[in-house]
Amino acid sequence: MERLNSLQDLFVHELRDLYDAETQLVSALPKMANAATHTELRQAFQMHLDQTRNHVDRLERIFNQLGQSPTGKKCEAMQGLIKEGESVLQMQGDAAVKDAALIGAAQKVEHYEIASYGTVRTFADQLGFDDAADILQDTLDEEGETDEKLTDIATGGLFSEGINEEAMARRS
Amino acid sequence: MERLNSLQDLFVHELRDLYDAETQLVSALPKMANAATHTELRQAFQMHLDQTRNHVDRLERIFNQLGQSPTGKKCEAMQGLIKEGESVLQMQGDAAVKDAALIGAAQKVEHYEIASYGTVRTFADQLGFDDAADILQDTLDEEGETDEKLTDIATGGLFSEGINEEAMARRS
Repeated sequence: MERLNSLQDLFVHELRDLYDAETQLVSALPKMANAATHTELRQAFQMHLDQTRNHVDRLERIFNQLGQSPTGKKCEAMQGLIKEGESVLQMQGDAAVKDAALIGAAQKVEHYEIASYGTVRTFADQLGFDDAADILQDTLDEEGETDEKLTDIATGGLFSEGINEEAMARRS
Repeated sequence: MERLNSLQDLFVHELRDLYDAETQLVSALPKMANAATHTELRQAFQMHLDQTRNHVDRLERIFNQLGQSPTGKKCEAMQGLIKEGESVLQMQGDAAVKDAALIGAAQKVEHYEIASYGTVRTFADQLGFDDAADILQDTLDEEGETDEKLTDIATGGLFSEGINEEAMARRS
């Protein structure tokens, strides 16, 4: 049975959780991209799929450095987050409203990852794994940027109407 | 079957998700408080339990204003997040390391709520529900403050050693 005797044990435990989470996300993002009606949103999901594949590779690099296996932990939280996203796909309704719902689901995923990468980056710093800390910070930055981009797509910019605004025009 | 025909439909859908999430959290936080070894962490969980009960009341006020029922949606993501927190409780290991793990689990919960409340506060703004938007902003602020407090407890302040530092002293 896995034990948490040291901060390094916990670091590896959390990295395995993230590895499973990112792997689940690589399977889920194409479905979210296909379901998105708005071109900008579809492209954002596709771009984030490429980034997510890279996040998986980065985690594998860290596991190699640690001489540890990346597998062995199921990320229950990501499973629940993805189930919520998939339930949106199955709902009937207006396309712009469903796009707004997909953005909400994706931002919950991003925030999960922001919390997780923030934790492991801090652990890496404290354990003196400087290279791992840098790699994890790069991913953390990208998750933050994705979250901001999704907010922009939802709320619109100076010259564009956001998806929420379009959804507002729909009355049940 | 629930439909997403308008932004208001989605607003109510997301509020129900949050209502179930907060209700699950009211049951989970006492277990996390009991499991925490560090006094400051235990107190933070207890204080957040009081806040969370208040968040449930606030959501009920908004449902009343909308003339809608708060129930009917299961928050799968929170279920997964809580399962992860509970799995930490069942693991063997050093007390400071387990406290650090509990902080990580709790910060994932906070970020889930930050994403969700950010979304519904934006919807409330756009729908012109100013009172609901203010109430949701108050809760959003408290979730953010809890997240920051947990970071402080983990990493320590100017005059105190953080839990991670204590956990660092443990070697497996």
